[in-house]
Amino acid sequence: MPLFTKYELKMYNLLKQLFPICRSITGNGVRETLAILKKEVPELQIYEVPSGTSVFDWTVPKEWNIKDAWVKNSKGEKVIDFQKTNLHVLGYSIPIHQKISKAELLEHIYTIPEQPNLIPYVTSYYKRRWGFCISEIEKNKLDDGEYEVFIDSSLEQGSLSHGEILIPGRSKKEIFLSTYVCHPSMANNELSGPVIAINLAKWIKTIDRNFSYRIIFVPETIGSITYLSRNLQYLKENVIAGYVLTCLGDNNHFSYIESRYGNTLSDKVAKLILKYTDPDYKTYSFLDRGSDERQYCAPGVDLPMCSITRSKYGEYAEYHTSGDNLDFVSEEGLNGSFELFKKIIATIENNKIYTNKVLCEPQMGKRGLYPTISTKKSGLEVRDLMNVLAYIDGTNDLIDLCNITNTSAETCTEIINKLLNGGVIQEK
Amino acid sequence: MPLFTKYELKMYNLLKQLFPICRSITGNGVRETLAILKKEVPELQIYEVPSGTSVFDWTVPKEWNIKDAWVKNSKGEKVIDFQKTNLHVLGYSIPIHQKISKAELLEHIYTIPEQPNLIPYVTSYYKRRWGFCISEIEKNKLDDGEYEVFIDSSLEQGSLSHGEILIPGRSKKEIFLSTYVCHPSMANNELSGPVIAINLAKWIKTIDRNFSYRIIFVPETIGSITYLSRNLQYLKENVIAGYVLTCLGDNNHFSYIESRYGNTLSDKVAKLILKYTDPDYKTYSFLDRGSDERQYCAPGVDLPMCSITRSKYGEYAEYHTSGDNLDFVSEEGLNGSFELFKKIIATIENNKIYTNKVLCEPQMGKRGLYPTISTKKSGLEVRDLMNVLAYIDGTNDLIDLCNITNTSAETCTEIINKLLNGGVIQEK
Amino acid sequence: MPLFTKYELKMYNLLKQLFPICRSITGNGVRETLAILKKEVPELQIYEVPSGTSVFDWTVPKEWNIKDAWVKNSKGEKVIDFQKTNLHVLGYSIPIHQKISKAELLEHIYTIPEQPNLIPYVTSYYKRRWGFCISEIEKNKLDDGEYEVFIDSSLEQGSLSHGEILIPGRSKKEIFLSTYVCHPSMANNELSGPVIAINLAKWIKTIDRNFSYRIIFVPETIGSITYLSRNLQYLKENVIAGYVLTCLGDNNHFSYIESRYGNTLSDKVAKLILKYTDPDYKTYSFLDRGSDERQYCAPGVDLPMCSITRSKYGEYAEYHTSGDNLDFVSEEGLNGSFELFKKIIATIENNKIYTNKVLCEPQMGKRGLYPTISTKKSGLEVRDLMNVLAYIDGTNDLIDLCNITNTSAETCTEIINKLLNGGVIQEK
Repeated sequence: MPLFTKYELKMYNLLKQLFPICRSITGNGVRETLAILKKEVPELQIYEVPSGTSVFDWTVPKEWNIKDAWVKNSKGEKVIDFQKTNLHVLGYSIPIHQKISKAELLEHIYTIPEQPNLIPYVTSYYKRRWGFCISEIEKNKLDDGEYEVFIDSSLEQGSLSHGEILIPGRSKKEIFLSTYVCHPSMANNELSGPVIAINLAKWIKTIDRNFSYRIIFVPETIGSITYLSRNLQYLKENVIAGYVLTCLGDNNHFSYIESRYGNTLSDKVAKLILKYTDPDYKTYSFLDRGSDERQYCAPGVDLPMCSITRSKYGEYAEYHTSGDNLDFVSEEGLNGSFELFKKIIATIENNKIYTNKVLCEPQMGKRGLYPTISTKKSGLEVRDLMNVLAYIDGTNDLIDLCNITNTSAETCTEIINKLLNGGVIQEK
Repeated sequence: MPLFTKYELKMYNLLKQLFPICRSITGNGVRETLAILKKEVPELQIYEVPSGTSVFDWTVPKEWNIKDAWVKNSKGEKVIDFQKTNLHVLGYSIPIHQKISKAELLEHIYTIPEQPNLIPYVTSYYKRRWGFCISEIEKNKLDDGEYEVFIDSSLEQGSLSHGEILIPGRSKKEIFLSTYVCHPSMANNELSGPVIAINLAKWIKTIDRNFSYRIIFVPETIGSITYLSRNLQYLKENVIAGYVLTCLGDNNHFSYIESRYGNTLSDKVAKLILKYTDPDYKTYSFLDRGSDERQYCAPGVDLPMCSITRSKYGEYAEYHTSGDNLDFVSEEGLNGSFELFKKIIATIENNKIYTNKVLCEPQMGKRGLYPTISTKKSGLEVRDLMNVLAYIDGTNDLIDLCNITNTSAETCTEIINKLLNGGVIQEK
Repeated sequence: MPLFTKYELKMYNLLKQLFPICRSITGNGVRETLAILKKEVPELQIYEVPSGTSVFDWTVPKEWNIKDAWVKNSKGEKVIDFQKTNLHVLGYSIPIHQKISKAELLEHIYTIPEQPNLIPYVTSYYKRRWGFCISEIEKNKLDDGEYEVFIDSSLEQGSLSHGEILIPGRSKKEIFLSTYVCHPSMANNELSGPVIAINLAKWIKTIDRNFSYRIIFVPETIGSITYLSRNLQYLKENVIAGYVLTCLGDNNHFSYIESRYGNTLSDKVAKLILKYTDPDYKTYSFLDRGSDERQYCAPGVDLPMCSITRSKYGEYAEYHTSGDNLDFVSEEGLNGSFELFKKIIATIENNKIYTNKVLCEPQMGKRGLYPTISTKKSGLEVRDLMNVLAYIDGTNDLIDLCNITNTSAETCTEIINKLLNGGVIQEK
C-alpha cells in the first residue's frame, strides 16, 4: 500500500529553530511557536482564549511574559542570566527587583542535588512565586555577599493561545492528534511532539483519506482542558482514535501508555504496530500516565486515545532538565517516530472488515495464487495468504487478522489486496 | 476510617474456659458452650431442634450425652480414662459395660500409627458403634489379659442445640458468619472459631452499620443443614457476603478457600484483604473445601460465602488429634485473625461506587490536594490520589479501585474521603 | 461404562492389503479401495460425481487412470519403473511415449535433495504435466544418453468416487468423521485414516447410540468440497462434533489441531481425552491446519470439527515420501488411535447435564457412598465423588465436570452413575 511507503524527512532543523523560544502555558512564546508552525502548514488556525475564562473546574490564568532576568552578586557580576537559558527562571515568576541576602536568595533557588550538573525545569502556574533554577554546582559557588535579583516579567490579563489543523476526509469520523507547546528550551519533552505533528499534517494532506484528521497544539493540561471544554461533544461523537505526541525525538525504544482501560482502537493499533516496529517496546499502564491523556481519558471525557513516546517522560534522567537539549534528540529518532505514526494512520485507514465470497477454500491455483504442483512444501509458500483468507469471515478487521495470523499490517494489507483482486473476498 | 482502627483483645482465656467441655453434634456440651458465649453477648439466642426432625436429606439424630468411660485391665487398673481427656471416647459411642478379650477390645480401638504420640478424634454419628481412641504408644502397652470396658453414655430422643446473634443495621442486607460448636477438647479446629465470632459480635455492636449481621454457632454439617432448612429463602434474599470461621487460632499463614466458583463478593474482599495483610497466604479451590461452606455453597443454596483459616483443616499435623491443644493456639494468632475479619467487614461496609463531579482532572491545587510547585517529582507525591480519582467513573467499587490502583483498602478509603471532602467525587 | 471398555483389534492386515493400490483423487484406485472397505462394512454407500460438475468454486476434474509407466535408458534398461512403486509417477501425469535427452528428462524429474534416499510424492491435479519421482541417489546415477519415457495413463471424462456410512441413532444430531482415500502407496498419511474409520464404524454399529454417525471416505480437498457442496445445509443443522482422521498409524505422541476458533465441542472433548490418554500431546493452532478441516472449518461452512493425528502431516520426515511405508505404522499405533476415538465418542455420548435432587449435601452414608466412621482421612476416600456432586448444578456437562474436578471421562462417568443410582442427581 502506498500508505506504508517509507519517507526520509528533515525535521531536526525545525526543532532547532523552535528550541530557543521561551514558551510557557500562555504568552508570546506560544504565539511565536505557533507562527513558525503555521508557515509549515498554513491550515493551522490560531485561537486565543481570554484569561479568566472558566474551563470545567479550572480558570484560564493570566498571561505571563518575560523579557529578562538575572541575579548579580555583590561585585555586580551576573551569576544567573536568563539570556543564557530561559530554564534559569521559575516559570510564571512574578516580577521582582530587589537586593537580598544569600539566605533569602536560596529560598528562591531550585536545583537537583542528585544531578549536580543540570538545571531543573520548575514552574508555579497557580501560586504567585518567583525563583531561579540553576545547577547544584552553580549553587555551591554562590558566595555569602548580598545579591541583586531582577525578573522583568509580567502577569496580566491576556489570553491562552492554541493552534488547530483540520484536514477533512470522506468521513466525519476523525483521528485526533494532540501535542503541546508550553515548555521553554527542552527538545524531547516538548519540541519532538509539535515537529512530528506538523510533518504528519503535511503527509496526511497528501493521502487518500477515509477519515478526517484533527491535530492540536496546546499548552499541556490547561490547554487540553480548555480545548475539551469547547469541543467535547463533537469529539466524543467523532473521534475514533487518537494519540498524545510527546518525547518522540530520541532514538531509544518506544514506550506505550495504555488508555484508561487499555481497550480502545488506539491501543489495539499501537500494540500491533509497535510489535513489528520495535518488539522490545515498553508498556506502561494508565497508572503511569502523565501528559494530556490524563484529560482525554478522564471519566466522562472517555476519548479513545493513548500515548506513544520514545523514552517516556519521567523515565529518563534528562527529563525536565537542561539535559533535554538538542543533543538528546536526532533526525533518526524523529524519523523513526514519524514512520511509526504513519504506519498507525495507514493501519487505521485500512482497518476494514472483509467477507469471503465463496464457500470452502477458493481454487487459488486458477487465479495464480497457489502453486499448481503439490509437493511437501508447496503449502508453506502461501501459508500467510491462506491463513488470512481462512479468518476473513465477516468478523475480523485488519488488526484482528494481523493478530490472529501473526502478520504485520503491511504484509496483511498486501495479502488482502491480492485476495480482493482475485475476487475471493469483498469488503463487508 | 475508624472501622480500620486496630484492637488488642484478650480472647485466649475464653478459649481456655471452653476447652475442657465435651461437645458433640448434640447434647449438654453444646448447651454449656452456648451458655458461656451468651454471657459474652446476651443477644445470643439459643434454639433446640428435636431429634427426628427432617432437615433436607437428613434427620436430626438422637441426642448423645456421656458421663464417664474407661477401660480397666485384668488388675483393675484404668488403662484408658475419659476423665483424662474426652478424646478417648469415640464420639456418639453407645453405652457398654462388659468384660472382653484383648482381641475384641482392639476392634474398638482407634489410633494413628503415623503419629504414635497423639490421640485421634473419631466419631460415628450415624452408625451405632462404641470405641476408644488412644495413642499408638498406649495401644502397644496393652497386655494380653481380659479387659473391662465401660461407657456411661446415652443416645436418646432429645434435640440439636444452636445459637444465633442478629445485629441489625440500616439495611436488611446482611453479612453472615458461621462457626461450629461440636468438637470436644480441640483448640484450633473448633474453639478459635466461636471465640473470634463472639468477639466480632461485640465489635459489630459498636460500629455504625450499613448492613445487618447474622452470626451462628451450630454443630458442623447437621447444624448448618438444619439451619439452612429453616432459613434458606431469607438468607438467599439478604446475604451479600459471608464466611465460615474455623482454624483461626494458630499464628501461621492464612488460607483462603474459594466459594464454588470463586466469584462472590466474599471471595473478592477476602483476596484483597489477604493480599495486604498476609501476602504469602495460600489459596485453596472449592475442591479442597471441608467445613460448612460445603452446605452454604451447595447447588441451589448458593450463598455468597467462602472460608478463611490460618492452617487449614486437614493440612496441619495436629488436626483432629490431641495435638490440637491449648499450646497450638495463641493470643497473637487469635488477634491477627480477628483483625483480618474486622478489615473485611470494614471493607464491605465501605464498598461503594463513586462518580466524578467535574469533567477532566479537577484543579487539585486549589483544594490543597496537589503541590503548587511543579518539579520532576511533584506528580509522584500524589500518585495514588490521582490514580484512585482517575478510576472513579461510576463503575468501580472500593475493591475494584484498590485492585486497579494497587492500594490497600485502608489507603484507598482514606483517599476517597479526601476526594469526598474536596468535593470532586460523590457517592453514586 | 461399557462404552469405555478396551478392545484389541487387528487392523494392520487391512492396511497392508490397501497399501499397493494406486489411488488418486479420481480413478479406479479409489473404487478398488472403497470396494475393499465395503466388504468390512456393507453399509458403505459408494457415490460417483461426474467430471465437470461444479462444486462451489471448483470443478470435478477429469478421471485419471494409469496402467504402466517407465523410463528406459539408451541400453533399454528400465531405470524408473511404475511397477516397483506407484510413487514413481507424478500424480495426474498425462500420457507420453517419447525419446528425449537427459536434460529434457531432468525437467520432469522430482527428488528431495535433503532426503536423498526417499522418493517424493508429487501431484499436479489442475495443470497438465507429466513427470517421474525418484530418489536423489537414483537421479545422480542417470547417465548422459538418450531416454525413452512411457506413461500409459488416461485423463478422461469420468467421475469422482466417494464413500459414506450412515449409522442412525436415537437423535438426528450426528457425529461426523471424515477421512481420505486419494494417496497412492503411503501408510500413515492415508491408510491409517480409512482403516481406523472403518473399524470405528464396526464398533459404533454395536453400541447404544444417542447420536447418529456419518463416516465419509473422500479424496482430500476436492472430495470434501464436493461432499460439502451437496450436503452442507443438513450437516450445519445436525453435526454436533466431528473429526478429520489421518496420520493415526504410527506410535508417536498425539497432535491436536484446533478448529478455526478452537471452541467447538470437538475441541473440548479432544482436549479432555488427550489430557488423560497422552499428557504430552502437542497442540497446533488452525494456522497449522492442512487436511480437510480446511473445508469443514471454512467461514460459512463452520462445522464444529477439528483434527487429531499422531505425528502430524508435514511434521515428520517421512511425510509425503516413500518413507511413509508399512514399517512406519504398527498395530499398536493403530489400536491406540482407535481407543482414543472410542473414548471421544463415549464421552460425547455421555456428555449430559445433571442437576442435584436435594438441597445441601445429601446424606451419602445412608446410601453406602460415604464412610460411616469419621476420621482424619475419611473425607479423602470419597473426594472425587463429593467434588463431582458439588458441581452438578444444572450448568456443567460431563466434560465441564471432568475439567473442574480433575477427573478423567471414565472416572467421572463412573461417579455420575453411582450418583444416579444413589438417587441424588438426575439428568437435566
